[in-house]
Amino acid sequence: MSARIDALPEGITTLADYEPLARACLNPTTWHYLHDGSGNGLSLAANRQAFETVPLIPRPLVDVRQGNTRLTLFGQTLLHPILLAPIAYQRLFHPDGECATSMAAAAQGGAMVISSLASQSIEEIVEAGCQIGVAPWFQLYWQGERERTLRLARRAEVAGCPALMLTVDAPFKQSTLVLPEGVAAENLEQPLMADQVPSGQSRVFQGWMAQAPTWDDLAWLRERIRLPLIVKGVLHPDDAERVVGLGCDGLVVSNHGGRVLDGAPASLLALPPILSRVAGRVPVLLDSGIRSGCDVFKALSLGASAVLLGRPYIWGLACAGAFGVAHVIRLMRDELEATMALCGCAELSQIVQTRNL
Amino acid sequence: MSARIDALPEGITTLADYEPLARACLNPTTWHYLHDGSGNGLSLAANRQAFETVPLIPRPLVDVRQGNTRLTLFGQTLLHPILLAPIAYQRLFHPDGECATSMAAAAQGGAMVISSLASQSIEEIVEAGCQIGVAPWFQLYWQGERERTLRLARRAEVAGCPALMLTVDAPFKQSTLVLPEGVAAENLEQPLMADQVPSGQSRVFQGWMAQAPTWDDLAWLRERIRLPLIVKGVLHPDDAERVVGLGCDGLVVSNHGGRVLDGAPASLLALPPILSRVAGRVPVLLDSGIRSGCDVFKALSLGASAVLLGRPYIWGLACAGAFGVAHVIRLMRDELEATMALCGCAELSQIVQTRNL
Amino acid sequence: MSARIDALPEGITTLADYEPLARACLNPTTWHYLHDGSGNGLSLAANRQAFETVPLIPRPLVDVRQGNTRLTLFGQTLLHPILLAPIAYQRLFHPDGECATSMAAAAQGGAMVISSLASQSIEEIVEAGCQIGVAPWFQLYWQGERERTLRLARRAEVAGCPALMLTVDAPFKQSTLVLPEGVAAENLEQPLMADQVPSGQSRVFQGWMAQAPTWDDLAWLRERIRLPLIVKGVLHPDDAERVVGLGCDGLVVSNHGGRVLDGAPASLLALPPILSRVAGRVPVLLDSGIRSGCDVFKALSLGASAVLLGRPYIWGLACAGAFGVAHVIRLMRDELEATMALCGCAELSQIVQTRNL
Amino acid sequence: MSARIDALPEGITTLADYEPLARACLNPTTWHYLHDGSGNGLSLAANRQAFETVPLIPRPLVDVRQGNTRLTLFGQTLLHPILLAPIAYQRLFHPDGECATSMAAAAQGGAMVISSLASQSIEEIVEAGCQIGVAPWFQLYWQGERERTLRLARRAEVAGCPALMLTVDAPFKQSTLVLPEGVAAENLEQPLMADQVPSGQSRVFQGWMAQAPTWDDLAWLRERIRLPLIVKGVLHPDDAERVVGLGCDGLVVSNHGGRVLDGAPASLLALPPILSRVAGRVPVLLDSGIRSGCDVFKALSLGASAVLLGRPYIWGLACAGAFGVAHVIRLMRDELEATMALCGCAELSQIVQTRNL
Ligand SMILES: Cc1cc2nc3c(=O)[nH]c(=O)nc-3n(C[C@H](O)[C@H](O)[C@H](O)COP(=O)(O)O)c2cc1C
Ligand SMILES: Cc1cc2nc3c(=O)[nH]c(=O)nc-3n(C[C@H](O)[C@H](O)[C@H](O)COP(=O)(O)O)c2cc1C
Ligand SMILES: Cc1cc2nc3c(=O)[nH]c(=O)nc-3n(C[C@H](O)[C@H](O)[C@H](O)COP(=O)(O)O)c2cc1C
Ligand SMILES: Cc1cc2nc3c(=O)[nH]c(=O)nc-3n(C[C@H](O)[C@H](O)[C@H](O)COP(=O)(O)O)c2cc1C
Repeated sequence: MSARIDALPEGITTLADYEPLARACLNPTTWHYLHDGSGNGLSLAANRQAFETVPLIPRPLVDVRQGNTRLTLFGQTLLHPILLAPIAYQRLFHPDGECATSMAAAAQGGAMVISSLASQSIEEIVEAGCQIGVAPWFQLYWQGERERTLRLARRAEVAGCPALMLTVDAPFKQSTLVLPEGVAAENLEQPLMADQVPSGQSRVFQGWMAQAPTWDDLAWLRERIRLPLIVKGVLHPDDAERVVGLGCDGLVVSNHGGRVLDGAPASLLALPPILSRVAGRVPVLLDSGIRSGCDVFKALSLGASAVLLGRPYIWGLACAGAFGVAHVIRLMRDELEATMALCGCAELSQIVQTRNL
Repeated sequence: MSARIDALPEGITTLADYEPLARACLNPTTWHYLHDGSGNGLSLAANRQAFETVPLIPRPLVDVRQGNTRLTLFGQTLLHPILLAPIAYQRLFHPDGECATSMAAAAQGGAMVISSLASQSIEEIVEAGCQIGVAPWFQLYWQGERERTLRLARRAEVAGCPALMLTVDAPFKQSTLVLPEGVAAENLEQPLMADQVPSGQSRVFQGWMAQAPTWDDLAWLRERIRLPLIVKGVLHPDDAERVVGLGCDGLVVSNHGGRVLDGAPASLLALPPILSRVAGRVPVLLDSGIRSGCDVFKALSLGASAVLLGRPYIWGLACAGAFGVAHVIRLMRDELEATMALCGCAELSQIVQTRNL
Repeated sequence: MSARIDALPEGITTLADYEPLARACLNPTTWHYLHDGSGNGLSLAANRQAFETVPLIPRPLVDVRQGNTRLTLFGQTLLHPILLAPIAYQRLFHPDGECATSMAAAAQGGAMVISSLASQSIEEIVEAGCQIGVAPWFQLYWQGERERTLRLARRAEVAGCPALMLTVDAPFKQSTLVLPEGVAAENLEQPLMADQVPSGQSRVFQGWMAQAPTWDDLAWLRERIRLPLIVKGVLHPDDAERVVGLGCDGLVVSNHGGRVLDGAPASLLALPPILSRVAGRVPVLLDSGIRSGCDVFKALSLGASAVLLGRPYIWGLACAGAFGVAHVIRLMRDELEATMALCGCAELSQIVQTRNL
Repeated sequence: MSARIDALPEGITTLADYEPLARACLNPTTWHYLHDGSGNGLSLAANRQAFETVPLIPRPLVDVRQGNTRLTLFGQTLLHPILLAPIAYQRLFHPDGECATSMAAAAQGGAMVISSLASQSIEEIVEAGCQIGVAPWFQLYWQGERERTLRLARRAEVAGCPALMLTVDAPFKQSTLVLPEGVAAENLEQPLMADQVPSGQSRVFQGWMAQAPTWDDLAWLRERIRLPLIVKGVLHPDDAERVVGLGCDGLVVSNHGGRVLDGAPASLLALPPILSRVAGRVPVLLDSGIRSGCDVFKALSLGASAVLLGRPYIWGLACAGAFGVAHVIRLMRDELEATMALCGCAELSQIVQTRNL
């Protein structure tokens, strides 16, 4: 790990204060890679818009002196329901990269999810978290074929990751980012799968999609994975049903932070129909657009079991490495507690009941 | 009282004209303390937005030559339904502080509500109003424990306040304002209740909320208070029901001017379901977002008995002390009268009937 | 009439092109007097917004070669349904004042409505129009008492006005405009009614409203007026019913261009319920927010018999006197014809049928 | 054809990137002629707004490795459903004019529709496309009388156009564009029909509309045309019914890109009721507002058989002639393929089923 000592920036009182500081720390290309949505940014904006329409009703005078934010998820005990979403190439944002994130998440009693495109080795990142007590989860991208994908999953399992999250909503790369020298997907087998397409064929259908996973591949993988397997990137209730039917342990309702299909609905809006269909059979998590503890409360009030936080923790990473990430988590959790207190909830499980107005 | 002579600013024709003048009078920190909402300002904006959606239908040709704006509230006769909301530390805004507000309210035939965090003594403030004829009410914050709270309530009663308003929606301080030398909460017992929390415990749940009132505390207090007791900060009909059930004399539907839980609904939108539940058993007042006499009319048209005006009277205070506050009230009342006249209402009680379109 | 020769401004293709030119011709005070709405401009904006929500469905391939825009209204034959609304003190905007407007309206085969607050004598204005062939109507403000009001109405009748329009929605003056030397309400009896109010009484209720007309006054007036009597400023169906019940000949659904009660609904939105109540017994006119021939079509498609155009013709007056007013009317009428043609209507009476989608 | 060699502009990744480049290539008058809508631009904005409200639901894990975008339309096989809309006077935008467009469309396996107001001869334009393999269609404007119109249609047929599209929604010219020297409607018979109107008559009704086609004219034309005849500019279901009833082969739901009747509904919103009425009897195409491959997907998801792309291909033409047009089509098609892949569609015919959420 780097010997660089980071100090927390001054004058930060909310998460939003980090955004301009992070922007100032990063070169414009990196900032846009982090921040932008795809296309015209419709889904990116829809994510935020959706949270603004969920009202919170204060419920004063409730006794919440025993309040806490603990939960158990896929067998792990967490101090709060805010996971750190898988984000690729974190050494783009800070030399300490994913290890800093792992330490910070563990220090705050929660878990990060390591991206398949992590810029440090899975083993190092797991180690950074385990020193403090909580192991990170691993996010799996399909590796173009079954065995290669299974090898990557197994490596994460051996390294000590307690859960696997298969991301299915981004079957091809859209970003045009050119990685700087020294930043790479450290855990992928070389050479990468070729995506050359014979002329006259479609780069999309016969190229990229020939390397994307199918429902059959998911079934195949499920049978070979002992760890809890969570599918990330579900927005349609029929797909949620099928994921559960294949024996997966959970799912993440997500539009990938508005970065893939522009026009995809806000994941918060997609959540309720999926929850009705899943009907409690597995935990349903949510990401895309979470920017405050109030937003965490809102997602849980609609029925999510936990949330994944994306870009905002990278703001903290960019500004102040592990300290910054830990601070972002702490701010979120404080806001979540305050919102619970004001809405009369002493336990996470009470939050969903506030919807019955 | 200060010997400073304030002149009314020139060219003011509506309340809104005071806002930029007040901003210019105050240092930015004080202005932001006064003006800002919490979080992203969703509730602050929702308050204004809500008023814009209530239409007014002009009803010409009605004979309103006997028109007036009088009402009786909790036994007091008031010349108009515009109370001045409890606002802390008024010496931040003008050296004459709460005494100026008290005089102005009385001079205009209405009442102010003294904050628990007033920067002058309750007795002085009451005196300033009584000289002119109307005594201010007192707003009670829970003082961390029962007896301390009761002592504060009793002091206000003895000083001559005719009604008590217990604010329940702000169980902990969110503002980061540092009070300048010479401005303090003059009426609170020293030392303040500690809010230290053992490490590993939550500053929110085990800290602040351990000092917040509960329904039991409210019941306890109600039994010990002879004055009319009004609960401020209710937004959920179930809570309104419970407040009435405990024998309180009234309630204020309020989101605290958008200063506490960002995402709380506009109080104007929360009003109708609460009114249906309360069904006339006690008067229901409204605050948060009132900026004109039209807004007062709108609140009354939905069924409020009276309103509390917040930030705008502080604009007047900042610009011109007692004269400014009196002028703000006069402008509001003139607009209310004009709106009544244009809508064919000669009495406040007719306003609610204009809703039956 | 003035000897000043006005030339039409260059490069005008739509009504909207006149607005910035007019602004440039007028001093800011006069411009704001003309342009602004009351309060926060809610009703002013609502007027425009309302027109934007009425869709037009093009109906190609209809044979409209016999098309025209003629109508008969209160016994008068007009070449088009665009009346010029009563606007006070037109010498503020151009030295030729109301006479220019009267000539232009007549030249275009339509009628203006002379304001009670005209800055030239009724007789001169009527004369200016009659030379060309069409006499202007007269708008009556209540003159504080019955006989004085009747005298003014009689004067207009004698001068040759074929219809009277009693404006009831503006019982008191809200503008703070100070009239420049030489511009005055030429047709009002001196001295004006006093609006002094004994101290302790309300300037609104006991002052202004004591001089406003009531339903009884309207009944009294109706009995004494032989000309068609139209009531301007109705927004509530109950009031429309009562106006018709008193034997008036028509009414104007109007919010006075958003200049009186801020928060009053857009008149276009108030139109349909009024039309259902009136059920064809008298013609219903509309004003407030008309800015193009499309808007005229929209108003007629909802059921209005004709419209009154307000501010836009004053833009023409300010820029180029009678020529400008005539040009504005011509542009509006061309747009109305084009809209009719595109929507497959050859007669005004077919427009209302386009609503049955 | 011009010897000018155009290079593709650098750094273009989406269609939208072309817009500012095109603006920079064109003089402001030409740009405004291309870009502006009529009136206040309500319909222009509504077109875009409508697409933003159609959500796309990603459907991961579907096997789309056999995916393609082929379709058969009016007997022609096309590689994708993106036709190039008829746009007048293309030599305004690039010296190679319509011939460049024709080549590019053919090279990309699709068809352009030649405007009646093309600035090159029909024969040349057809030839430019046929060299590569696909013949352009021809758009017919009514030529003021039957025989003249039929002569123009026959000329296009003889030249080799496989389909005719009669535009009925623009019976008169609204643009004030003055054509520069050397750019003209090359294919119209001289002299043009006169549009002089005797004084006292209406330029709209007795002038322009006397030269516009009627339902009878359409019936007359239909009987005399062997080629597939498609009617462009239908927004009302009754008109769609009548078009089908007369034996036409298809229709284009269009508001002419917001260029004719300002206030006409977005064509995307007009599509569903028309599709229900047509009930599959003929293909229904859509244009107005298509700006990306996502938009094509959305139109097809609502039931359109294909779309016409308007202004955006002119951006490509202005920047880089035939290469630019081909690039624009390629970008659109790539986006369409990506959207299909992400939404789990391997064939165009599956797109409409994604609506059954
Ligand atoms: C820069 C960046 C890189 C990302 N990389 C991955 C990734 O490698 N794997 C993955 O499953 N999701 C990835 N995501 C998506 C996130 O996991 C998450 O779904 C999204 O950021 C949530 O939205 P939010 O940023 O609005 O909170 C990435 C997101 C960002 C912003
Ligand atoms: C600067 C400031 C201080 C306040 N202090 C108190 C207080 O001490 N006690 C209380 O009950 N409410 C307090 N409030 C809330 C007001 O009583 C009132 O609910 C709110 O200002 C109404 O909204 P408005 O400002 O939009 O009119 C305060 C509000 C402001 C703006
Ligand atoms: C400057 C001005 C003066 C007006 N004066 C009168 C008046 O004297 N009498 C009257 O009945 N209405 C008066 N009106 C209202 C107009 O008759 C009409 O209702 C209004 O202008 C219509 O709205 P528009 O301006 O949006 O078209 C006035 C309006 C303006 C803008
Ligand atoms: C500059 C321009 C010229 C046009 N000329 C014609 C024309 O000659 N014939 C026709 O049927 N439509 C014409 N149109 C309309 C287009 O065919 C098409 O309906 C419209 O551009 C689609 O909307 P979009 O530009 O938003 O894609 C023209 C459009 C533009 C922008």
